[in-house]
Amino acid sequence: MDVIEFAPTPEQYGWSFGGTAPIRRVRPGSVLQLWSDDAFAGRLRDTKDRASALLDTRYTNPQTGPFFVEGAEPGDTLALHFVSIEPARDWGVSTTLPLFGGLTGTTRTATLQDPLPELTWVYEIDSAARTVTFNANESDHRILLPLEPMLGTVGVAPERGEVRSTAVPDTFGGNMDTPEMRAGATCYLGVNVEGALFSIGDGHARQGEGESCGVAVETAMNVTMIVDLIKGGAPAWPRIEDDRHLMTVGSGRPLDDAWRAAQVDMIGWLGGLLGMGKMDAYQLLTQISESPIANMVDPNFSAAVKVAKDLLPPMRAYGGMHQHLRELAAGL
Amino acid sequence: MDVIEFAPTPEQYGWSFGGTAPIRRVRPGSVLQLWSDDAFAGRLRDTKDRASALLDTRYTNPQTGPFFVEGAEPGDTLALHFVSIEPARDWGVSTTLPLFGGLTGTTRTATLQDPLPELTWVYEIDSAARTVTFNANESDHRILLPLEPMLGTVGVAPERGEVRSTAVPDTFGGNMDTPEMRAGATCYLGVNVEGALFSIGDGHARQGEGESCGVAVETAMNVTMIVDLIKGGAPAWPRIEDDRHLMTVGSGRPLDDAWRAAQVDMIGWLGGLLGMGKMDAYQLLTQISESPIANMVDPNFSAAVKVAKDLLPPMRAYGGMHQHLRELAAGL
Amino acid sequence: MDVIEFAPTPEQYGWSFGGTAPIRRVRPGSVLQLWSDDAFAGRLRDTKDRASALLDTRYTNPQTGPFFVEGAEPGDTLALHFVSIEPARDWGVSTTLPLFGGLTGTTRTATLQDPLPELTWVYEIDSAARTVTFNANESDHRILLPLEPMLGTVGVAPERGEVRSTAVPDTFGGNMDTPEMRAGATCYLGVNVEGALFSIGDGHARQGEGESCGVAVETAMNVTMIVDLIKGGAPAWPRIEDDRHLMTVGSGRPLDDAWRAAQVDMIGWLGGLLGMGKMDAYQLLTQISESPIANMVDPNFSAAVKVAKDLLPPMRAYGGMHQHLRELAAGL
Amino acid sequence: MDVIEFAPTPEQYGWSFGGTAPIRRVRPGSVLQLWSDDAFAGRLRDTKDRASALLDTRYTNPQTGPFFVEGAEPGDTLALHFVSIEPARDWGVSTTLPLFGGLTGTTRTATLQDPLPELTWVYEIDSAARTVTFNANESDHRILLPLEPMLGTVGVAPERGEVRSTAVPDTFGGNMDTPEMRAGATCYLGVNVEGALFSIGDGHARQGEGESCGVAVETAMNVTMIVDLIKGGAPAWPRIEDDRHLMTVGSGRPLDDAWRAAQVDMIGWLGGLLGMGKMDAYQLLTQISESPIANMVDPNFSAAVKVAKDLLPPMRAYGGMHQHLRELAAGL
Repeated sequence: MDVIEFAPTPEQYGWSFGGTAPIRRVRPGSVLQLWSDDAFAGRLRDTKDRASALLDTRYTNPQTGPFFVEGAEPGDTLALHFVSIEPARDWGVSTTLPLFGGLTGTTRTATLQDPLPELTWVYEIDSAARTVTFNANESDHRILLPLEPMLGTVGVAPERGEVRSTAVPDTFGGNMDTPEMRAGATCYLGVNVEGALFSIGDGHARQGEGESCGVAVETAMNVTMIVDLIKGGAPAWPRIEDDRHLMTVGSGRPLDDAWRAAQVDMIGWLGGLLGMGKMDAYQLLTQISESPIANMVDPNFSAAVKVAKDLLPPMRAYGGMHQHLRELAAGL
Repeated sequence: MDVIEFAPTPEQYGWSFGGTAPIRRVRPGSVLQLWSDDAFAGRLRDTKDRASALLDTRYTNPQTGPFFVEGAEPGDTLALHFVSIEPARDWGVSTTLPLFGGLTGTTRTATLQDPLPELTWVYEIDSAARTVTFNANESDHRILLPLEPMLGTVGVAPERGEVRSTAVPDTFGGNMDTPEMRAGATCYLGVNVEGALFSIGDGHARQGEGESCGVAVETAMNVTMIVDLIKGGAPAWPRIEDDRHLMTVGSGRPLDDAWRAAQVDMIGWLGGLLGMGKMDAYQLLTQISESPIANMVDPNFSAAVKVAKDLLPPMRAYGGMHQHLRELAAGL
Repeated sequence: MDVIEFAPTPEQYGWSFGGTAPIRRVRPGSVLQLWSDDAFAGRLRDTKDRASALLDTRYTNPQTGPFFVEGAEPGDTLALHFVSIEPARDWGVSTTLPLFGGLTGTTRTATLQDPLPELTWVYEIDSAARTVTFNANESDHRILLPLEPMLGTVGVAPERGEVRSTAVPDTFGGNMDTPEMRAGATCYLGVNVEGALFSIGDGHARQGEGESCGVAVETAMNVTMIVDLIKGGAPAWPRIEDDRHLMTVGSGRPLDDAWRAAQVDMIGWLGGLLGMGKMDAYQLLTQISESPIANMVDPNFSAAVKVAKDLLPPMRAYGGMHQHLRELAAGL
Repeated sequence: MDVIEFAPTPEQYGWSFGGTAPIRRVRPGSVLQLWSDDAFAGRLRDTKDRASALLDTRYTNPQTGPFFVEGAEPGDTLALHFVSIEPARDWGVSTTLPLFGGLTGTTRTATLQDPLPELTWVYEIDSAARTVTFNANESDHRILLPLEPMLGTVGVAPERGEVRSTAVPDTFGGNMDTPEMRAGATCYLGVNVEGALFSIGDGHARQGEGESCGVAVETAMNVTMIVDLIKGGAPAWPRIEDDRHLMTVGSGRPLDDAWRAAQVDMIGWLGGLLGMGKMDAYQLLTQISESPIANMVDPNFSAAVKVAKDLLPPMRAYGGMHQHLRELAAGL
């Protein structure tokens, strides 16, 4: 089993999905031990820091990658299993950015109101105690929250030669900002270009569903993952599997469309796995779907649709790939 | 403690929020033991039954109520605690309706495509075993699902003299179709008219988040609830509290607006309970919000925003009303 | 030909569609000479006036009506021809209202930003010169604009016993706020209740398409109109015909749905008038549709779809009703 | 004055905004005489032709360009004046494509319904008579429509290194599909990259506002245009000026956001030209805006906002650039 360690220098950061030359070639079955900087490339560190002064806010979510997966061809399915996602720092940062976020007019939902104030919060991360500490800006509140690390961005190169900002989630994955992208999960992505060219980044020590203000507890991450490849079977939208759930993640605007995409993809997935007709799968999903919002802040919004495996008859998605990768991970 | 039993005859069914004379007067603190018919008034019973043939599909969700709560005035807060919600039948029904549902063009999202087929599913409900059994229409699949009863509609008379269909969720509650409306929950609704005029209905033996096809496992319900009243403090949107979560429920189109309403209301609620400024509460909610979609099918879509109490410092919403009602319920 | 004159006293103003007893009974073919107060019932008169101080802003658009049309039954089509719509005052008023309008967060599209300032503009109306004069608040700009009077609200009682605020546009017409509702136009509305119960109001000395800030040049109006009735044929959405165009008006949120509704209704109308199949009518409309936005500010947004009659083969909508009413109007 | 003639070979067609090497360098002030193929690269010619069989429908709107404008730097404003846009063929074609268009579920607004039928219409174009003839597929209707040629796509390379499909409209222009892009108009686009890298394509012999089915009367075009450059002043969104109107074009989803963007940009433009405060410009625009929908079918929807110059005090946008280019054009 190949084990590849890689931590990019700032010059090696990737700032797009597509349009970037691969940083490494990896074989299916490889283990990657990666480091990924935070969404602001570490430039926000103090409650007095302001993103609009310290960086070009059009460039966020520096990626570790892209990786060229040998043998991956358009129409194939990339399987990315996250063995561990652990903070690489003992602090994280969040902020409000002018005209960005879910509860403000934005550059896309333009209003004439004054922007909300730009403020920064610094969180303490205690990986041993598994806590993230919120400190209010305007009062003395100090609240310990569970550490629940995740990756905001996991994506491949888009189809049709498009190059998209690392702020964008879409069919190629990208900045989905779903808390479901945690250790123990396997993400399935359709391959659009030779080598797939996947990358990861935007680590969050924790994040609420919807990511209301647009910025989670941003921190650098150490990520151990296993890369595998399934020939053919490319899903229309990103899928995630963990021990308890099958999930699909749709992205679009309005949120209605993100949800619709995830639902329709799940109906197709369930129908195929269970050998069930479209209308029956629609009916079944109506009664068992979990539908947490992922993000309401990015250029596309994202919605996850989850189905608990224990509600379903026994089935093996992608030939048991998730279980296979869990077992490999356990042996590391 | 007053105990009021009431099961409406078909002539007594309520078909709107507002515009209906009260069926009973109740004092705050009363216990209600109610029966509520299913969304189709029991007219769909067989997989061969078709709603479009058997009923006027513009009239669904017959209400039990409205109840006039003594002393309730505009600006007050009604507290409805659900002690138990139990199926009153051993079967439930679901269906697709032409041009209704989340994954089809509808009368509001008009397209030129042919409608999906109209199909009906009948579920077996085993209250002792706590199961609901799905039987596929086109194949032999038979899947046992957990019984998780809930009420689709809980609402008061709207403000401004409006009269709304029982299909509609809005600031007055109504057809929110959130699985959070289950036994053990307390729903807080702002009072718009003297007496509040609340009603309940649309029992679901279970429902997925989003209610994709538009119809859950519809069944008649026996509901035991306690009604209480808080003077003043009317929330802008419905709120729900249970032992583990504070919740707000926004409704609107697109789903974005439902989510925004619920988030903004939660920020105001948290800020008030914790004595925290708006921007700090926005930041905190960003990291702790749970955001399950409630319905993507009704005239307004609905989204719940949940905050786990164990993530927050100790606080008592509405003076500890939920705990008080839980204790009363335990003594019944 | 009956000629009915009516100017309501403030106690007679109608504040809803549906739920109000008829103020007069009229026979099809009657001429009505009506006066209608402005959207604020005349309470805003000076640039220093503030709606939020002077009135309950939930109550706007006082209606003149409702009128009971003899013989009108559900499923029929009401034809309302506007012979003249002329300002009844030499001034009009516009204003911004907190959290209302197209370019601000609102009560339905909730954000955390501060509201825009509440300001009032007073316009001079010169009916002889056919001008409306804009005077800037913060500078010396004074701009003469053409007087182009129209009615913001024209509606009937909703179906299903609903009662809706006079702020709402929907299938029953209502607060569509389209500049197409001008003298010379015939509005066709589906009848939902016996007598139709139509009303008019919300006169605008002029209004841009979209009504960005939410408030046009509001003024009282003298309206001469002819009421007629077509048995059957109720359209799904309001339709308007003038000498040059056939029009449909859809309402909903987001604006996408308003446009879709108007397009689908126009395809059905064109198909029926021309004897053309659905796909051909869709294709034809694709190349000839005019699509002005009506309002982006009300509880539902509205979009008009227009087809120029001179692009079409000769046809007579509703048996030539518009031409008939034009001739009657010419004879008044 | 440089005069550059260019007609691309199929190998030279551009299939994206950004990511393509310039085909020519041009100096500001140059005249370009261009030929542009139709949206389907001429592959649909008969009513029996089906796009899904004859081409990769992900690749439409082949561009003529991109052109590198000497001296153009990020933040500058490119002025593109269309002297003439004339059909290069005596036929045009339209079609329905499965899961594409405004009145059907799509790949972005996913539903479970069957797609609409895929049909093709061939139009006769008579440039001398200025007519476009519609021939129905299912009946004998034959309708002569006015020839009103326009360009669906006019765009520059996007910011941030993005590469976007030629199906997409956004801040960089692109596939806006607005009938306002006709001969006599000047389009202003913000420059994002050195040389601007603009291109044109997607000629329509005519198109309705909204482009309901997603495909106009597609035909190859001969285009004469003048290219000029204004240092600085890059607008946030594309702007268009003709002899009668100032226009802005916003794009986004839902259509609400496209309209909002165009409105806010127009308010800034008007405010600057007239020396008027934001709130006064908002008020003025409320009463004078024309708001035709451009497209409801592309990955972003587009809305134009128009202001008639004759309603405004005398002013000169961009130092009178449009008038200057009109005069140059008259001298060709």
